[in-house]
Amino acid sequence: MNGAQSLVQTLVNCGVEVCFGNPGTSEMHFVASLDSTPGMRAVLCLFEGVATGAADGYGRMAGKPAAVLLHLGPGLANGLANLHNARRAATPIVNVVGDHATYHLQYDAPLTSDIAGFARPVSSWICESKSSRSVAADAARAVQAACAAPGGIATLILPADTAWNEAHHAAQPLPRIGPAAVPDAAIEEAATLLHNGKRSVILLRGPALRGAGLEAAGRIAARTGARLMCDTFAPHVEGGAGRVVVERLPYFAEQITQALSGVEQMILVGAKPPVSFFAYPGKASWCSPEGCAFAQLAHEHEDGAQALDALDRALGGTAPAVARAELALPDLPTGRLTAMSVAQAIARLTPEQAVIADESATSGLHLAMMLARARPYDHLALTGGSIGLGLPLALGAAVACPDRKVVCPHGDGGAAYTMQALWTMARENLDVTTVIYANRSYAILNFELLRVGAIGAGPKAMSMLDLHHPEMNWTRIATGLGVEASRAETAEEFNAQYESAMKQRGPRLIEAMI
Amino acid sequence: MNGAQSLVQTLVNCGVEVCFGNPGTSEMHFVASLDSTPGMRAVLCLFEGVATGAADGYGRMAGKPAAVLLHLGPGLANGLANLHNARRAATPIVNVVGDHATYHLQYDAPLTSDIAGFARPVSSWICESKSSRSVAADAARAVQAACAAPGGIATLILPADTAWNEAHHAAQPLPRIGPAAVPDAAIEEAATLLHNGKRSVILLRGPALRGAGLEAAGRIAARTGARLMCDTFAPHVEGGAGRVVVERLPYFAEQITQALSGVEQMILVGAKPPVSFFAYPGKASWCSPEGCAFAQLAHEHEDGAQALDALDRALGGTAPAVARAELALPDLPTGRLTAMSVAQAIARLTPEQAVIADESATSGLHLAMMLARARPYDHLALTGGSIGLGLPLALGAAVACPDRKVVCPHGDGGAAYTMQALWTMARENLDVTTVIYANRSYAILNFELLRVGAIGAGPKAMSMLDLHHPEMNWTRIATGLGVEASRAETAEEFNAQYESAMKQRGPRLIEAMI
Repeated sequence: MNGAQSLVQTLVNCGVEVCFGNPGTSEMHFVASLDSTPGMRAVLCLFEGVATGAADGYGRMAGKPAAVLLHLGPGLANGLANLHNARRAATPIVNVVGDHATYHLQYDAPLTSDIAGFARPVSSWICESKSSRSVAADAARAVQAACAAPGGIATLILPADTAWNEAHHAAQPLPRIGPAAVPDAAIEEAATLLHNGKRSVILLRGPALRGAGLEAAGRIAARTGARLMCDTFAPHVEGGAGRVVVERLPYFAEQITQALSGVEQMILVGAKPPVSFFAYPGKASWCSPEGCAFAQLAHEHEDGAQALDALDRALGGTAPAVARAELALPDLPTGRLTAMSVAQAIARLTPEQAVIADESATSGLHLAMMLARARPYDHLALTGGSIGLGLPLALGAAVACPDRKVVCPHGDGGAAYTMQALWTMARENLDVTTVIYANRSYAILNFELLRVGAIGAGPKAMSMLDLHHPEMNWTRIATGLGVEASRAETAEEFNAQYESAMKQRGPRLIEAMI
Repeated sequence: MNGAQSLVQTLVNCGVEVCFGNPGTSEMHFVASLDSTPGMRAVLCLFEGVATGAADGYGRMAGKPAAVLLHLGPGLANGLANLHNARRAATPIVNVVGDHATYHLQYDAPLTSDIAGFARPVSSWICESKSSRSVAADAARAVQAACAAPGGIATLILPADTAWNEAHHAAQPLPRIGPAAVPDAAIEEAATLLHNGKRSVILLRGPALRGAGLEAAGRIAARTGARLMCDTFAPHVEGGAGRVVVERLPYFAEQITQALSGVEQMILVGAKPPVSFFAYPGKASWCSPEGCAFAQLAHEHEDGAQALDALDRALGGTAPAVARAELALPDLPTGRLTAMSVAQAIARLTPEQAVIADESATSGLHLAMMLARARPYDHLALTGGSIGLGLPLALGAAVACPDRKVVCPHGDGGAAYTMQALWTMARENLDVTTVIYANRSYAILNFELLRVGAIGAGPKAMSMLDLHHPEMNWTRIATGLGVEASRAETAEEFNAQYESAMKQRGPRLIEAMI
């Protein structure tokens, strides 16, 4: 057994079943060990940002880490933007980065770089294996670190000689570092606040937005009248008919301020006080009302779902009926294709338990509105603001949930960053329907240019926000990457294409000419 | 005048005329200032790795820096792999990275990250502007730092409020920090060595591979019998008919060792002793013969071309005729399309003074052989080994040299990383002919898998090197991104398509089905 085999077997022992990779020479022993070590599925990606974004989507849906296999510093660098998003989502990922053999580094060969330096800003844990005999133990610690609550990116740097030299054996899983229990005092404080008659918001993030945590939050809201809210880009939310209703904070600072107007206290469950996404001249970054009090019921590394359940019990008495979203499917739209009609068709036609890997950007407002009362779904958001996550996220979610339809509504500007994800969707025959909102623009920047007060923007400036020259043709791009694709110019065309995609299995792309 | 305007005007004052960018909200003032500040051409890229690779191509050909405009940490992250290549090429680049407003950072909004941390491994200089009133001076220092010999990446982090707040005025250029003169002692040492009768190699890199430096090297070789060589991935070499002949070191370690067999001394001009690109079990990383002596005539930051000229004069006497490549164009190939027939057609049909932005990977051996006696050209190499540089490099070279044909021979695996470059080629109507070697494989890894001794590689492993399922269709991808494209299945088809591309102006892609 060599170091690479001990690594892959250890990952499998620790429950890591999938590896999204874009390997090179220094990772060839890892690749070779895929055949001798059953239990690891290797998914090839043409670009590293696809691999890391896919690991994010997988981790959010599977609740456990995938591995990523990257080629030295530059391979890691290409994956960093989506690791930034994953860090903001607190997604567990085991990030394996090959490096030159330990004795080769002294020569500063062309691919040599400061891998740990690249990894530091996104990693919750970094280790460089020193010997093939320590790789197995390092890998077990990497999985433990990735899974430690709330979840993080554990970067294991694997010099080539630690992969090819002899190892003892694989390692067994280390104890899981689960979420810490919330102290009673925090629960009592929250209970007291919720009895003081003030206007309250409970701001939820993490597991508190799903399953038992969400149910407990719903009971608390019913008992107390507190509003349930979540961040604009909460990583993973269960939504749709039958689910407890949670208001999502809007994107722009003044809209957040308006949404929170009159709120006197905020109870934070795995969340932080809401702030503006960007700063704007003369506008506040801090979006809560003046004098609003904060109580942190659960920190991000603590068990927010358990805390909500305990808080619900502490509030006592019989809970009134919980407010749930009712099913209300819009009619199929007709006529001109717009972001609204796309949203209506998606809401109407998407089957139950779909995963929405959402990078709809400026077109997303309508979608959120329409999905609120659609069939139940899981929603995955662009957590870190680094566009180009949606397609990889959908890919990873589809690997994690092979029996569920994955829908990926995506702005065209953002999709251009990681279009290579389509190839892997085709290769793995994943059940993903991608909807490209083809507005030929970085549309958000048209708003932002004005909002930041960038006066004097003329034709040169405006051309930097515009994607019309030339027009990307997403049906050609997608079929060029192996994915069946079609273009919809009217609502009727979109309805028909989307309906057929929902009835088929396998990857599909619809270019919605909004 | 705001900080952004003072920045752009300062860059223009310092001779920076082109900005390759992918801006976001925090860079909107920079974008707006493009209209109020004449003299800066803004080139929009759909992905940051395209922008940084284009700045590398521009810098290598223009001999001065372009600016890059990137959006916070993740935007920088997407550009890092090609900045790694640019660092290895010692290309001057002014790398402007927008950040949140200084007062906004405390809130840790979703896009917040450690920008300086990301930048450090690739930057020769990093500065974060503290105030709108210091931006102009910071920008002048950035240009000075980027241009300091041998050239490097100067990263200027620009918080949004330093862009939008009031500034005094633009700054004037700072003195250039040119290459240091080589001390007489180094020239005397080299002259002594070249007279000692031992078998010598002069290993050239940087400006010594072009113009007067290359001519001086040719005279020295003619006088002394020393062999002229350059690194496998020398950044920028003038080659073809009429040029002084320089042997390029091969890629694999044992081939380098063979090429250097019998060499007793090596004189390094801006170069380092040759080492293996990767380590292989049981093979040496150090590729020079045992006992080979080294003399560093010029370090990378020193003036190698001037040192060669001084050395030539120190050797004295009348120089014999310099060995130059003679023009020998191959016949146009017929029949099956192979890497060799593609190389023959390119060598035969490419006009004089073309720029070859080369990421031909495993198909490149034939090309190098055929180009050696083709019409004179400039050759740009994949300096840092991070694949996905070729297309952006071609883009940047075409912006720098609008009157020259740019040819981009590219492996299909590598081209998939930065295919978005095609869109910018179309947008700017750049005169680039891309040739995709469509072998549907990471072909190099088939060699490397064996060479690293990765035993036991079965079907799972082999599938990680294979790009057949699905097959990328590069004609669809390219036309989807706005570039005219065609597929060649035979040598005759390739000849006809390539000949027509050479006679036209504007972007063109040929998918060579080798």
